[in-house]
Amino acid sequence: MTESMINFGPGPAKLPHKIIEKIEGNLYNWEGTGLSILEIGHRSRAFQALVEKMVSSVKRLLSVPDHYAIIFLPAGAQNQFAMCNMNLVGAHSTVNYLETGYWSKKAIAEAKKYANVHIVASSAERNFFDIPHRDSWRIDADGAFLHFTDNETIGGLEFPEKPDGQGLFLVSDMSSNIFSRPIDFHNYGCIYACAQKNFGISGMSLVIIREDLLDKADPQTPAVFNYKLQWQSNSLLATPPTFAFYVASLMFDWIEENGGVDKFDQLAKQKAQLLYNYIDQSMFYHNKVDKRHRSRMNVPFTLSDNNLTDDFIQQATNVGLANLKGHRSVGGARASIYNAMSLAEVQRLVLFMKEYEQKNG
Amino acid sequence: MTESMINFGPGPAKLPHKIIEKIEGNLYNWEGTGLSILEIGHRSRAFQALVEKMVSSVKRLLSVPDHYAIIFLPAGAQNQFAMCNMNLVGAHSTVNYLETGYWSKKAIAEAKKYANVHIVASSAERNFFDIPHRDSWRIDADGAFLHFTDNETIGGLEFPEKPDGQGLFLVSDMSSNIFSRPIDFHNYGCIYACAQKNFGISGMSLVIIREDLLDKADPQTPAVFNYKLQWQSNSLLATPPTFAFYVASLMFDWIEENGGVDKFDQLAKQKAQLLYNYIDQSMFYHNKVDKRHRSRMNVPFTLSDNNLTDDFIQQATNVGLANLKGHRSVGGARASIYNAMSLAEVQRLVLFMKEYEQKNG
Repeated sequence: MTESMINFGPGPAKLPHKIIEKIEGNLYNWEGTGLSILEIGHRSRAFQALVEKMVSSVKRLLSVPDHYAIIFLPAGAQNQFAMCNMNLVGAHSTVNYLETGYWSKKAIAEAKKYANVHIVASSAERNFFDIPHRDSWRIDADGAFLHFTDNETIGGLEFPEKPDGQGLFLVSDMSSNIFSRPIDFHNYGCIYACAQKNFGISGMSLVIIREDLLDKADPQTPAVFNYKLQWQSNSLLATPPTFAFYVASLMFDWIEENGGVDKFDQLAKQKAQLLYNYIDQSMFYHNKVDKRHRSRMNVPFTLSDNNLTDDFIQQATNVGLANLKGHRSVGGARASIYNAMSLAEVQRLVLFMKEYEQKNG
Repeated sequence: MTESMINFGPGPAKLPHKIIEKIEGNLYNWEGTGLSILEIGHRSRAFQALVEKMVSSVKRLLSVPDHYAIIFLPAGAQNQFAMCNMNLVGAHSTVNYLETGYWSKKAIAEAKKYANVHIVASSAERNFFDIPHRDSWRIDADGAFLHFTDNETIGGLEFPEKPDGQGLFLVSDMSSNIFSRPIDFHNYGCIYACAQKNFGISGMSLVIIREDLLDKADPQTPAVFNYKLQWQSNSLLATPPTFAFYVASLMFDWIEENGGVDKFDQLAKQKAQLLYNYIDQSMFYHNKVDKRHRSRMNVPFTLSDNNLTDDFIQQATNVGLANLKGHRSVGGARASIYNAMSLAEVQRLVLFMKEYEQKNG
């Protein structure tokens, strides 16, 4: 095992080296407070300023229109599977969901606890290798909203553009591709994403919600799960995961310093293209996802001889390429190449894949 | 402002210096994995072993009987205000709550969303300066359980011993005093505590629950909020706050290396006694909590001249004693002296208080 590994894991994922250096420099004394960043109180002026800065950063990075609220919450996106329904079903009895893979299925299972879930379309029969064609969608116009999973981390499937909600507002899980391309907020009601893929460490999520939707929460909603109450208290209704917030704030700065979301969009395309091009010309590696719907963030692939998969992953680990194992539900291999992954690092992976193919193909 | 401050804040709270050093040593390469502890995957064998070790540590530190499940969850204790009801009300329509301060009031407000809350007794009329006498309690025997807040972080009130549930099992919020004294588990159904006071950083909680109670969850409970499902997946149902888990694991080791819970119980009494003795003999500082019910963890006090409070806190900050401000709901000053606070550090505080009194008294 080499000293320093490149982390191709799906999340908790690779952090830029510079972020770790920043953290190191503030472990004992955060910005001259004399206190470790790990023990900073969330009611301190310095921390409140940090949260305000985080809100501004998100607004600027994603050009969020003024009538959207930005909230940071503890825990990952699975909490939002429940919370988006607690907060957004309102007087409706039905919600619309697109089923395009493992994570949208999970989201649907949780939504069923709050409303009738109308499946607008599903590619389950095609192993989630594509997004169902628009002509096959059947939206329930009386439903509260249309939910979709913008990027399926496990299947490696990504919406090339936002779906048409036919007048319903959109709710989207952007956990694994937020900050990797611009968002046109028109028609979006709510966007949520966990931090541990594209903007930090595990233990927190970002929610962006249209302000006029903040009055729909079921009155039985626990205070900490109520978007409006969290927004009104600047994400400080309860003690937040302070350190995770801090890391996210550093990541926002880093994304901005490195050219912003447009730049990371270009880079994501370059990195993904490099990998897919190599896989597609090879007879040894395979990716079955419809080319129009392939993820720029997560590239799953199989080997012609599945018996080699474990060895492939072990050999990769031996040369410093870590966590290439596919999700337990689908097997195979997967390279997660979020914002923190450089083009050079993806080139290293392709080089290794080529060498491995030459030896074993 | 001195370089290094002593953090008397209520949480996120002081961490032992050694813990920060350990973290520093694993920022780039956790235990030889070649990956930063900040980017370790929760499905890796190394991380799963960490969680198993955490469970063993808690069992050992608190002598938890075998028929209790130990779960680690994201977010703080306010999530548990809702979750303990989602999971434990079962077929009952009523729950019993003792009202002894700010946090039990908050817990009651959330419980009302799930059941009729029967207030067994309240010291609200006495400004929560004591725990109501046992003779005044009226328990609803048909209620699901008796909930109490073992230590009121803001009021500085602590149960000297566990209450008598009269046959009902006890549910307790031990956020601010867990691991500071032994627990006799008899009659306990469920104990919960956030990490950021006595065993780590903000963003996670510990739940200890009697296994036979794990079947009571409301079927509508979101998977991530279901104690049984979390237990069955070893606290890894969803991506956990991995770094917060790691810090907790270090804290468990540190508590054990420093003599365990019995030792910290002795130390807590010593530290609290030192502060209360000084306050009680002074005509300048005051603490009105019933001496039998004073907290060993949080020592709130007022100054005879309330106009001096801000200056007192500023002067303390100037000499390196940070975050002595009382909670915004009660004002005054407060010293939080959790496990990580040494006797010498409390002595430094008392010395400062003495000097301040001499100058201004």
